[in-house]
Amino acid sequence: MKFTINKKILLQNLNNVSRALSNKNLIPILSGIKFELTMKGLILSASDNDIYIEIFISKKDINIEKEGKAVIQGKYILEIIRKVEDELVSIELLDNIKLNIKCGNANFNLNCMDYSDFPNLKIKENKKPIFININDLKNLVYKTSFAVSLQETRPVLTGINFKTNGKKIECVSTDSYRLAKKEIILNDKIEEDVNLIIPGKNFIEFIKILENEDINNINKNVEVYIDSNQVLFIYDNINFQTRILSGSFPDISRLIPKNKEIKIELNNIDFYNVIDRASLLTSEREKNIINFKTIGDHAIISSNTPEIGKVEEKINIIKEQKEKNIDISFSSKFMLEALKVIESKEVILEFINDIQPIIIKDKNDENYIQLILPIKTY
Amino acid sequence: MKFTINKKILLQNLNNVSRALSNKNLIPILSGIKFELTMKGLILSASDNDIYIEIFISKKDINIEKEGKAVIQGKYILEIIRKVEDELVSIELLDNIKLNIKCGNANFNLNCMDYSDFPNLKIKENKKPIFININDLKNLVYKTSFAVSLQETRPVLTGINFKTNGKKIECVSTDSYRLAKKEIILNDKIEEDVNLIIPGKNFIEFIKILENEDINNINKNVEVYIDSNQVLFIYDNINFQTRILSGSFPDISRLIPKNKEIKIELNNIDFYNVIDRASLLTSEREKNIINFKTIGDHAIISSNTPEIGKVEEKINIIKEQKEKNIDISFSSKFMLEALKVIESKEVILEFINDIQPIIIKDKNDENYIQLILPIKTY
Repeated sequence: MKFTINKKILLQNLNNVSRALSNKNLIPILSGIKFELTMKGLILSASDNDIYIEIFISKKDINIEKEGKAVIQGKYILEIIRKVEDELVSIELLDNIKLNIKCGNANFNLNCMDYSDFPNLKIKENKKPIFININDLKNLVYKTSFAVSLQETRPVLTGINFKTNGKKIECVSTDSYRLAKKEIILNDKIEEDVNLIIPGKNFIEFIKILENEDINNINKNVEVYIDSNQVLFIYDNINFQTRILSGSFPDISRLIPKNKEIKIELNNIDFYNVIDRASLLTSEREKNIINFKTIGDHAIISSNTPEIGKVEEKINIIKEQKEKNIDISFSSKFMLEALKVIESKEVILEFINDIQPIIIKDKNDENYIQLILPIKTY
Repeated sequence: MKFTINKKILLQNLNNVSRALSNKNLIPILSGIKFELTMKGLILSASDNDIYIEIFISKKDINIEKEGKAVIQGKYILEIIRKVEDELVSIELLDNIKLNIKCGNANFNLNCMDYSDFPNLKIKENKKPIFININDLKNLVYKTSFAVSLQETRPVLTGINFKTNGKKIECVSTDSYRLAKKEIILNDKIEEDVNLIIPGKNFIEFIKILENEDINNINKNVEVYIDSNQVLFIYDNINFQTRILSGSFPDISRLIPKNKEIKIELNNIDFYNVIDRASLLTSEREKNIINFKTIGDHAIISSNTPEIGKVEEKINIIKEQKEKNIDISFSSKFMLEALKVIESKEVILEFINDIQPIIIKDKNDENYIQLILPIKTY
């Protein structure tokens, strides 16, 4: 293997592929990045056995002298390429056991790992994929991933339920105290509907890689291929594959209340800041409880921790449909995370009573709904 | 106590005084900030028993309604003032046990701590102080503090030796593997010479507070008052006091080699980057050893860790006075920290042989010298 490549191109792609590097290092080969150079270009891949990333750099960006392949300790190659200063990097495999890296006056020889140990994980792209616009996919993940469970006691709740129904894709997550559901509508019907659970943290890793992508690609699609226990996303030159969680996701349709008695509209940023201040005097240990009470055309947000002190703040209600007032308590942490993903200027809150879930909606997005369970304080 | 103050002014001063807050909380009162309001203005103070900070906000920045005093949990008052949004904050002591804080619609009541528990630590400003220009003081600390010892085995080495001699002030630090000495020359002779050891981390805390100060004050002086076991720095409205380390600092004059046989000049940034890259393949466990070898008009920097790989890079020597070449090994970590504080474009390295300390000088600052002990590799 022998080639020359632009430093920036190599670095960006190494950064992306390194998201699959294992930090735990239980299996040594999983700390490596695989380089495979053919006359078509360079394939970089890495895996922690949970996700697998493969990235292709086309021959147009590489001066290829000789094909070949090697596996290199990921953290060293990444740090080296990050710190060399010249525009071009020359890489050559020596005696099949050392990788020589030259850039400017710097000359590195890195020991290679055993190429045959590197796992071959990629699923086949045989079935017809589902096509999802890159921004729609980002929305599906950003608007639901924060609500996945971090506890391993019910593994399915650490995932996002990804479900299709004709032209509709629905993502749902819940940690059993709160819930987020986002839908998108496709132009074309999906041939074969799917219902799977994708690990939340892996789904976020993929979206983070997409964040670095050129914004000129904003209208491009992500291709989704589904296997029995893996899902493969392909975007441009990036292949991102993750395992699927086994088990069935709870049916959430019965959880969403129908008969809302109180509906109010608040300025989202103002409400966020009021909750943020009220949460200063709460503690994680006490579930960050704050109280929300409507009185006529305004609401009072308060919290009280006797050993520290108390706080109270008023916020104006922009619009209301209510026949009675509400007096309800909830976790400020959950409410802050819920409001953070609301994009409209206004957030809509709906209540039935002080024990039914609070419904949170984005004024400009009717395909998005969140629930938070109130906390009983009496 | 009752007053109204601009939020930004209060926040900046609370941020500064909070640098003395104890995180360890062994003595509860040390997590508090003391407020003392008189008709002259507001005094904020805090201490962790190691440092003591007192800051005065003049009456011109406060609308004073009633004098008074209170001690408040530092982290809560700081977070509250950070997160309120209006321009003005109103603060009132209620029943001597609660502090009421109002800003916009937000209304906080914080429990007070017992005022009588707060330690009275400030030394008297009776003797004539030493006056040091703020930038000179910053240089004395920044150019020496990185070389203090982090080990408590020889406590005096965790401090910076602050010594005066007539018009000269000298700061020295050493962890016994390296050394940094910076001198400044005053316009006037100091009446009574001093020789003390100031804890390195405390000295840095003071300099960090000065960093936030208005750069229009660049020509202002810091006043230094010295007591038997405390030193008090006064700058503008800030009083910063720290304990002095007892014991005597090692005599370093005999450590600085006189007969330098090799003197070379390198571009400082280039040299830093070469060392930085060579250090990628070294490990902390192996003392980050790298090798430096002169050959004619250039030097070769290299490192070799058999389990990972090796690296070699050439750098041009700008100017040299040498009758022989040097081949020497040292810690890349120490060299990087040494080069970071060199301000000139060129760094000067002087060697006697491969076992005597390496001398590092700033081309444009003849009052600054650093030493690094080489590492024997054979």
